[in-house]
Order: sequence, then structure tokens, then C-alpha cells
Amino acid sequence: MPPKMNPAPDFAVWSRDVQARTEHALAALLPAAAIAPMRLHAAMRYAVLGGGKRVRPMLAFAAGEAVGAAPERVLTVACAVELIHVYSLTHDDLPSMDNDDLRRGKPTCHREYDEATALLVGDALQSLAFEALARPGLHPDAAVQLELLHLLARAAGSRGMAGGQAVDLDSTGKTLELAELEFMHIHKTGALIRAAVLLGALAGDRLDSEAREALERYAKAIGLAFQVMDDVLDAQASTATLGKTAGKDAAQGKATYLTLMSAREARDYARELTDTALAAIAPFGARASRLAELARFVVERSF
Amino acid sequence: MPPKMNPAPDFAVWSRDVQARTEHALAALLPAAAIAPMRLHAAMRYAVLGGGKRVRPMLAFAAGEAVGAAPERVLTVACAVELIHVYSLTHDDLPSMDNDDLRRGKPTCHREYDEATALLVGDALQSLAFEALARPGLHPDAAVQLELLHLLARAAGSRGMAGGQAVDLDSTGKTLELAELEFMHIHKTGALIRAAVLLGALAGDRLDSEAREALERYAKAIGLAFQVMDDVLDAQASTATLGKTAGKDAAQGKATYLTLMSAREARDYARELTDTALAAIAPFGARASRLAELARFVVERSF
Repeated sequence: MPPKMNPAPDFAVWSRDVQARTEHALAALLPAAAIAPMRLHAAMRYAVLGGGKRVRPMLAFAAGEAVGAAPERVLTVACAVELIHVYSLTHDDLPSMDNDDLRRGKPTCHREYDEATALLVGDALQSLAFEALARPGLHPDAAVQLELLHLLARAAGSRGMAGGQAVDLDSTGKTLELAELEFMHIHKTGALIRAAVLLGALAGDRLDSEAREALERYAKAIGLAFQVMDDVLDAQASTATLGKTAGKDAAQGKATYLTLMSAREARDYARELTDTALAAIAPFGARASRLAELARFVVERSF
Repeated sequence: MPPKMNPAPDFAVWSRDVQARTEHALAALLPAAAIAPMRLHAAMRYAVLGGGKRVRPMLAFAAGEAVGAAPERVLTVACAVELIHVYSLTHDDLPSMDNDDLRRGKPTCHREYDEATALLVGDALQSLAFEALARPGLHPDAAVQLELLHLLARAAGSRGMAGGQAVDLDSTGKTLELAELEFMHIHKTGALIRAAVLLGALAGDRLDSEAREALERYAKAIGLAFQVMDDVLDAQASTATLGKTAGKDAAQGKATYLTLMSAREARDYARELTDTALAAIAPFGARASRLAELARFVVERSF
């Protein structure tokens, strides 16, 4: 058997590479801590850098690979999506929301700084995401670049992520049906996961409607699978492993998959969703191998 | 003397017209309160509609008139800038920031709803501003549309408005020099006023560098004049006239122009800044008459 030429690096190597590239690009994108207002800039860097699984950047890179998009461009859209994600975590951790002390293994932004600073950090990270994506010349086709911006803004707003958080607030202490729980998750985390996949792919050329629908089906399924596993891990893993407070959903009376099914059923459900995601991207063939690995990673992860 | 044909409406009529058009467009842009999540959408509408001087939309319209931009396009950029403004007011009023009870003559968003909702309202309004500005086909030149987005994102972020708010926080209880006070205002309110003027003008064609610099000089001067008069009015007007809590700057130990000069000196300074603004736009001639009227309005207003 001849030796395999240039074998693709395995998933662990690839994911560490995406994490390192994302970290480096985010560090360059964020204003230096020496630029006024210094405390705000230091706090923004604290919230964004040095942690996080970078699942959304991985999804953007994997989707970019599936369509052959230029990696430098994918890197910018990956950073924009991650900035929106970190802004939402920073606001979500505030006392008026989840009131959390720990995030990514360190004190939350408002614990390390103060509430007003954490509020402004989230606000400014949202602006920075759009500033990065609006950079002149990011995409050779300005109309596609506008579509990237429109998709991300819509995914972040009241009919996307922020709307999902509002539903989450309203439902605390209530018993939700499966359909209501999934409505919440499709917005709260699903919208940004879908944006990560679509933006990664749109960093390449325009997408035909078939490819786009396939990627949307994939993103919707793995978004839900991710959330199902988040609920399982929140209930079963330790705070040290998660890097955030474990068991807080139950403590806060939040609706989770585990209030509707057993942990075993939840894991089975996550696997079913993974199969749906894998079926959706089958037409892309080998180019979608990273998307496939990510779908499996979502259900097999322990953090 | 022959009768004047189609005289331009006077400033009061014009400004009421801009206010009405902005209100109408914002009402159409905001998701209906009947769309889920309903409580969030109702709160967004509560924060945005039915009040406000709409100074930034007026500036956008006046700048649009100075360069002959299409009014429908100016209306969209005016709404985007106003949405950023209202998001910043909503967050600024939160207990961890200014902790204010009254805004635009009614209870602040977190008093009428709750803190978590007000936080999400501000977040979602910021997203909506960028979503509106990224709408496909808003501007015939997609590259100019990207510039609109880039300008607004930069103006809103840590090197603009959010950064100015951080400086404001850090300086509470301290004595600032005039230069430090103006650094804060140039960011906190000036950045968005500049964006309103530039976006209104860029809603037309590309700007040559001379026109752009003139508009920037104008915007910088009236931005400061506006703030000087805000400090004078905060100290001298009543809560009923202002529609927000009067005297709160002094009560909170905030640095204001009146800690550096008398009210009379402050009014004189505001008039000087107005003269600077008027000189900057002189090359536009009669097309800039609304910009000139707005510069005068800023120092003559009583609310």
C-alpha cells in the first residue's frame, strides 16, 4: 500500500489550529489595552481572550472548507460570530440575568471588573463584530458582504439570539413542552450556530439554494444536539470540567431537556439529531468531513 | 415683489415632519408586539416609540438635503442611528449605570418592565440598527452601504459612544480638565452625532474629502455645543420640561461644563461652537440651510 500523501490532520489537531488562529485574530481585532478607554479595552480582552471552545469558529471553518472559501476571509467571519457569542455570555452572566460567577474557568467579567463595565463590554463587542464584518474589501463581492452582515444582525437580534434569551427568562420556573423548549433553543443558541455555518460558507462564493438549505438543516440539527448535550453536561459534569458553574439550570428552575426526558434518552436524542445533520451534508461528500466530525464532537464532548 | 414660489417650510414644520416620518419608519422597522417573544418586542417598542427629540434623525435629514440624497434612504439611516441612540439610553438608565427612573417623560424601560428585559431591549435594538442598514438594496452602491455600516459600528463601539460612557463612569466623582471633559463628550455623544451627519450625507453619493471634512467639523462643533447646553439645561430646567430627571449630573458627582465655568460662560461657549459649525458648512451655501438651523436650535432649545 503506498503511503498516504499529505493526510488531513486529525480532528484534534485541526480544532487546536482553528482555536489558535481565532485567538490570534481576535487579539489583533480587539483594541489594545493601552488605548483609551483602557479599563474598558482591558475588560473586553479579558472577556474574549484565553478561553472558550470556539465551537462557532470551528463551524465557520468547517463550512468554509465544504465550499472552498478563502481561509483569511473565513477567519474574519469566525471572529465576528465569536464576538457576538462572547457579548451574549457577558450580558447573560450579569446579576439581572443568570448572575453567574464563573465563565471559561475564570471569574465572569462583572466579577473581575464591575457590572457597568461588563454591560459596556458586551455592548462594545457587539459593535466590534459588525465593524469587523463591514471592513472595506473583506469580500470581493460587496453584495455578499452585506448579506453576511444582514444574516449576523438578524441572528443576534430579537428574532434570533436575544429573542431566545427573552423566552428563556419568561420560562424560568415554568414547565415547558418539548416544542416550546426547542423554540427557545432554536433562537437562543441555534440562531448563532446557523449564522456561523452560513457565514463560513458565504465567505466563499454565493451559495445555490440547495447547498444553503442543506447547511441550514445541518446547523439546525447540530444546534439542538449541542443544547441537549449542554443540558446533560450541566447536570452531570463538574464545575471544574465545564469551566462554568455546573448544575445551575436545575438550581434556577430552568426548563431543560432533562425535565422532559432521562439523561439516557437525551443522549439518544442528541445522536439522532447528529444523524440528521450528517444526512443533510452527505451531498457535499468528502469536502464536508470537518462538518461531520464537528457533528460527532458535539455529542461526544465532555465539556 | 413677486410672490415666493414653494417656500421651504419653516424649521418648526420641517422638524415635526422629520419626527413624524422617523416615528412612522421606526414603528414599521420594529417587530410587532404580537410577534414572539412578545414581551421583548413590546418593550422595544416602548423604549423607541412615542418620544424623543429625534435630533440625530434631523441631523441625518439636514445633511442629506445638503448633498441631495434620496429621502427614503436617509430615512433608513436616520432610523439606524436613532436605534443605536435609544439602545444606549436604555442601558445608560440601568441601575448599574445611571439608575434613572424617567426618560422621555415616562418610566425608563427597566422600571416599566424589568432589568433583564431592558438589557435585552438595548442589545436587540443595536442588532436591529445594523440589520436595517444591511438590508439588501438599501444603497445602489454596495460599497457605500458597507461604509455606512462600518462608520456606524465604529461610532457605537469602544472607540466611540461605548468608550465615552466608560470614560464617564471612570470620571464620576473626579474633577476633569476641560480637555478631558471634551474627550469624553466627543466620544459619548459626539461620535453618534458625527455618524448621523455623515450617514445622512453618504445616503447620497460618495463624498469628496473636502465635503466630508466640512461635515465632520460641523458635527464635532455642534456635538460639543449640544453637550454644553445639555449640562446647562440639566442644571437649570425642570424635570417636567426635560422629560428626564433634572439635576442628576450634580447629584451623581459627574463632571460637567458647569463645574468648569459659569452658566453664562457655558452659553457663550455654546454660541462660539455654533459659529464654528456655521463656518464649516458655509461652502454648501443654501443647501445647508437646515444644518444651519439645527446648529442654532441646539443652543436655543429649552429641553
